[in-house]
Amino acid sequence: MSYETDNIARIQGYVPGEQPSGSGVIKLNTNENPYPASPLVAETLAKIQIEELRRYPSATAREFCHLAAEIHGINPENLVPTNGGDELLRLALTTFVGESDTVAITTPSYSLYPVLANLRGCSLHEVPLQKDLTYPENLIETLCNLSAKICILVNPHAPTGALLPVSFIDSLARKFKGVLIIDEAYADFVDPDLSYDSIPLIRKHKNLLFLRTLSKGYSLAGLRFGYGIGDHELIAPMLFKTRDSYNTDYVSQKLASAALKSKNYAMTTWKKIRGSRIVLAESLSQLGLKNWPSQSNFILAQIPQEPGAKNVYHKLKADNILVRHFDVESLSDKIRITIGSEGENKQLISSLKKIIAP
Amino acid sequence: MSYETDNIARIQGYVPGEQPSGSGVIKLNTNENPYPASPLVAETLAKIQIEELRRYPSATAREFCHLAAEIHGINPENLVPTNGGDELLRLALTTFVGESDTVAITTPSYSLYPVLANLRGCSLHEVPLQKDLTYPENLIETLCNLSAKICILVNPHAPTGALLPVSFIDSLARKFKGVLIIDEAYADFVDPDLSYDSIPLIRKHKNLLFLRTLSKGYSLAGLRFGYGIGDHELIAPMLFKTRDSYNTDYVSQKLASAALKSKNYAMTTWKKIRGSRIVLAESLSQLGLKNWPSQSNFILAQIPQEPGAKNVYHKLKADNILVRHFDVESLSDKIRITIGSEGENKQLISSLKKIIAP
Repeated sequence: MSYETDNIARIQGYVPGEQPSGSGVIKLNTNENPYPASPLVAETLAKIQIEELRRYPSATAREFCHLAAEIHGINPENLVPTNGGDELLRLALTTFVGESDTVAITTPSYSLYPVLANLRGCSLHEVPLQKDLTYPENLIETLCNLSAKICILVNPHAPTGALLPVSFIDSLARKFKGVLIIDEAYADFVDPDLSYDSIPLIRKHKNLLFLRTLSKGYSLAGLRFGYGIGDHELIAPMLFKTRDSYNTDYVSQKLASAALKSKNYAMTTWKKIRGSRIVLAESLSQLGLKNWPSQSNFILAQIPQEPGAKNVYHKLKADNILVRHFDVESLSDKIRITIGSEGENKQLISSLKKIIAP
Repeated sequence: MSYETDNIARIQGYVPGEQPSGSGVIKLNTNENPYPASPLVAETLAKIQIEELRRYPSATAREFCHLAAEIHGINPENLVPTNGGDELLRLALTTFVGESDTVAITTPSYSLYPVLANLRGCSLHEVPLQKDLTYPENLIETLCNLSAKICILVNPHAPTGALLPVSFIDSLARKFKGVLIIDEAYADFVDPDLSYDSIPLIRKHKNLLFLRTLSKGYSLAGLRFGYGIGDHELIAPMLFKTRDSYNTDYVSQKLASAALKSKNYAMTTWKKIRGSRIVLAESLSQLGLKNWPSQSNFILAQIPQEPGAKNVYHKLKADNILVRHFDVESLSDKIRITIGSEGENKQLISSLKKIIAP
């Protein structure tokens, strides 16, 4: 007999991207930053003594929240630290959605959203993107008509890399009756020439929750550190009720704080990645592969029926290059390529060339 | 307006013990180990490079689970790694309890249990201990008659430190229809002369889930690393469905593994603490303070109405010594004292002497 609840017994878990343990693999499948974190993070790590680990960490990651608040021009009370960005999503569903409520998302997007809604035991409404993976014109009205308790949009979009206008988030937050979550896991890679900053909208909208993470922009996927940003009334129940009391550990608090203190260093990696993004997009186009203009650290590329996207995924893997292929209708003819180092991108293109036009 | 669900809006969060940031405080309030982790943990920490943090960690903490399995004489499939022991409790409630179900606990015990049941939105049935804080004679029958989906017992008991006979756990697991969680956060401090080991019971009972943590025994409260042990059918849904995919980070996996590899070192700290436990208990008795025989790293002491437990807590605090006072009926006349280093225990006793018999 199974002891799981009926709901849990029914569902499938989330399947994360492959994490090969060996070296020698060019890993362009889970959107990690190809460059390591800053020297200050390294120094901070080297200075930690095990004596410091004997005690419980700050339950609310005080130092980190003060630093993050300064960077975003908000107050520490607007922040909740989380064990990776994924935890913020789970906390939001636990806090704001009941089992008889609905969560609204667009499809395709981050494949964890439906899994979390299933785990919560609530209803899920998926609004499909158009065939070219742009949002439908009447998206705001469609989303508002669903009476959902939470709507989650990823911005820049995954897997296309498209950026939502701040004015769109503003409008949707004003019209939407529930909590609007904007998952900005990849926001660090947005071109600074766009002067893009959606965070100040939390002062206007009490229902707006942003997700940020240090996994990608700060090269710390192994550390598990993310945070939520919103009005204090929205943040407080997650901070003081639904979060596990000590959800972020001492080492990760220290290193995440050091990463923010040396944001300028991280920005140099973002610049390199943006440069590589232009080169990679051009190379893909030259191979005749349609690709989506990305403000993120990955590029979605469409593969012609011959040789086929799944086939290309496998052939690249045989060449020791991992990219991501999603076996869902709207993405089955595409692959998502994380932007790697210059050398990695070159090897990818050279391998792709052999596969696509041998 | 609040966006919280009605259930979340209604409840209070868990209030963890005080974590003063300054030094100079003798901290005997949250059951931390007074001695640091092993030299191997320090070496392992010193060797970690930030380049290793760029990528996602092992989602299932493979190395750690293999080591822990070896220590307990079980299989890696019997283990789920968690972000502190608290996460295991939350996962168990998410996985095995629905909103219309009941969780059974005894009272007093770890004050997080009722908070987690409230968060899950399920019913809670609390079976009171007897006035002397021993379990009632008919406990197994009482618990089995509740039709609870989960029963949680802490062993050694918190805050008394009393150990459950293995035969008791065996009987209860056999008769109880739901999942029996034995929270062994403090099991490392049990006297080895007792040859106590309840873990092999998982081979007999498919409904038995043990909680273990590295916070106390391995001096790593700051690291947040715990694990669950049980039949694979019980472990699998938590491992593959309800757990956040990357719930433990790279650094904590590495250090937790090093801690297990150097278990012999940790055992030397357990021995010192057991020695101090005898001395501290005697000193408390000499002060005329009734205390409970403890197999844990804390001692519960009863304080006469004059000067009163809460008053003693405050006076110790004024002396820069933190102990724990729980403002609930069965414990309001007691304080819980974490066993510190020899010097810390001496200062506590000397301060207590001034307060109790000035």
